[in-house]
Amino acid sequence: MAEESGAATDFPVKRQREDEELNNNHNHNGVEMEGIKDNNSISTNKESEYISSVIPGWFSEISPMWPGEAHSLKVEKILFQGKSEYQNVMVFQSSTYGNVLVLDGVIQLTERDECAYQEMIVHLPLCSIPNPKKGLFSRNMPRYHKVEYCPLYPSPQPDNLKHWAMSKVLVIGGGDGGVLREVSRHSTVEQIDICEIDKMVVDVSEQFFPHVSIGYKDPRVTLHIGDGVAFLKAVPEGTYDAIIVDSSDPIGPAQELFEKPFFESVAKALRPGGVICTQAESIWLHMHIIEDIVANCRQIFKGSVNYAWTSVPTYPSGVIGFMLCSTEGPPVDFKHPVNPIESDDGHCKSNGPLKFYNKEMHAAAFCLPSFAKKVIESKAI
Amino acid sequence: MAEESGAATDFPVKRQREDEELNNNHNHNGVEMEGIKDNNSISTNKESEYISSVIPGWFSEISPMWPGEAHSLKVEKILFQGKSEYQNVMVFQSSTYGNVLVLDGVIQLTERDECAYQEMIVHLPLCSIPNPKKGLFSRNMPRYHKVEYCPLYPSPQPDNLKHWAMSKVLVIGGGDGGVLREVSRHSTVEQIDICEIDKMVVDVSEQFFPHVSIGYKDPRVTLHIGDGVAFLKAVPEGTYDAIIVDSSDPIGPAQELFEKPFFESVAKALRPGGVICTQAESIWLHMHIIEDIVANCRQIFKGSVNYAWTSVPTYPSGVIGFMLCSTEGPPVDFKHPVNPIESDDGHCKSNGPLKFYNKEMHAAAFCLPSFAKKVIESKAI
Repeated sequence: MAEESGAATDFPVKRQREDEELNNNHNHNGVEMEGIKDNNSISTNKESEYISSVIPGWFSEISPMWPGEAHSLKVEKILFQGKSEYQNVMVFQSSTYGNVLVLDGVIQLTERDECAYQEMIVHLPLCSIPNPKKGLFSRNMPRYHKVEYCPLYPSPQPDNLKHWAMSKVLVIGGGDGGVLREVSRHSTVEQIDICEIDKMVVDVSEQFFPHVSIGYKDPRVTLHIGDGVAFLKAVPEGTYDAIIVDSSDPIGPAQELFEKPFFESVAKALRPGGVICTQAESIWLHMHIIEDIVANCRQIFKGSVNYAWTSVPTYPSGVIGFMLCSTEGPPVDFKHPVNPIESDDGHCKSNGPLKFYNKEMHAAAFCLPSFAKKVIESKAI
Repeated sequence: MAEESGAATDFPVKRQREDEELNNNHNHNGVEMEGIKDNNSISTNKESEYISSVIPGWFSEISPMWPGEAHSLKVEKILFQGKSEYQNVMVFQSSTYGNVLVLDGVIQLTERDECAYQEMIVHLPLCSIPNPKKGLFSRNMPRYHKVEYCPLYPSPQPDNLKHWAMSKVLVIGGGDGGVLREVSRHSTVEQIDICEIDKMVVDVSEQFFPHVSIGYKDPRVTLHIGDGVAFLKAVPEGTYDAIIVDSSDPIGPAQELFEKPFFESVAKALRPGGVICTQAESIWLHMHIIEDIVANCRQIFKGSVNYAWTSVPTYPSGVIGFMLCSTEGPPVDFKHPVNPIESDDGHCKSNGPLKFYNKEMHAAAFCLPSFAKKVIESKAI
């Protein structure tokens, strides 16, 4: 379960037995959890149980996923602590990162840097598939030669144009609403479904992260509380243009979202040339996990398969990666977006301006350090 | 002295009075320093004084430069602790990041991720100026139109070609030798001077970081122990093709290296069209410092002025920035390197392959998130 780090460079890395023992229930992560009642109601101002035992007054993120290191934030006030059916949920007000959402001892978002993750996980895929209002066959977009010769899906005749452009988006996880907020910037999307397993996440976000949960206010959004894996199995083939998987790490409730059967369900639920973007860990810490994800995706997604990454200060090693893939069909060139969000500023009125994403950052996200490029590209052969 | 963070987003950030009090000597940074003798000899295996007081058995990096957060590394063994004339110096063996060099309580390098910083701070500038062996006026390089009309420096006639290409490099700081290791990969460099203020840094690097201090083995290197500011003042005008400033943060001995008079000395010591690359903090934490640096550089460097950044997991917020500027003269387009290091693999024999830098990473380093781009570009007007 614990992943050895150290793929980046060549000095030996020791597995941290003490860390593993400390975290042997893998949802404690060094945070004292004893005495927490299993309740779904919102309790406030309990200043004790969830604070890290290692730095009094600070929250420290210790996990076997990143042995031997910990990022700590100074806590001003615990705003919420609860245990849902699936995980421990905590919200605290930090000294310098605003409110912070923690699931099973791991930081999911802070008000200060959530923009980087939410904007990149959404606009990397959605800016890479055509926007019907801009014309599917304009000069700036790829022509879909392959479609004409493939018997598996219909030719892009005018009647099918709408089907090929972006109109239906599914979010798996992402209960805080931040991904919804970013999807809703795309005015041509007609339907936004979200399947989140844990209602407590939705509720605490509404109460403590109003600028994040604002995503739910969009009338195109339908919330399904349930298991994303089961939800996807029930989806009719070819339903979605884009599926965004905003999961936590592959220990705990999100484990299945990193496995091959899940990716097979995603591929089936996507239309030809549809895209998936899924949270895919850190190149500095989890190269072995990434290798497996890339290998699985290359088997399952017959269109493009790319790895991108970006800076998020409060995630371990300060970065997070994304796996971007498309199904066989109209080709998708993730590195050269065809649907620039920046040119349409209507979305800023309700959701505020983009803080992080722009077209240069889009292209830059696919540039990988040599040590990571070597491993990821070797999986392409 | 303490810099307020929070430029990235718009929630209010409170100055952390407790942190400031904790660090009011600004070289303690939460690490117990009492009882350390002022000695220049190498002492080993004292497991007490330098370890952070906040997590027993861990080193925690707490500083007023990044209030309210701390990155911690698990300590296997203290390898060295000493107090030089300028700063507290510590080396420890970490559980998962190899050996770690700490100056005044702040992590300077770890064996695991030093490649990112060293390779980027060197190859961003040195791959941006011509290599004489490849021909100064090849099709792939900019032509130096401005040179022909400026009376301040000679025209690029064949006799001057060597002068205009990269042959003399100065490193300020960087006593560990990692920057030297990367500079030495450029075979056409003839002279590499380094001015490091603290000999203890050179000595501990030689003892505990052999893969970093290997840079000193290059016969082109001359080490000057002394103050970089004074050294630069004594340099004849137009001496260097490139100056790399590998400094610590702008508190303590490196303070002057962020101020305007220093940049003026750098500009004078560079030949026309010569380049500087200096460590320039984090866009997530120090936007106010960066604004000042950019504004100063725009006044002083009349060629190009660009900001770049990269991922370094063990630096606060997981990123570090670089200020890249050129003096008036042959134009330098930092975003489009003319001197690719990758094409010449002779350097790998002695220094090993590049782990991080490649030409895609070079270009990507200049792509900035919208919040930073807005501020940095406003300084361009």
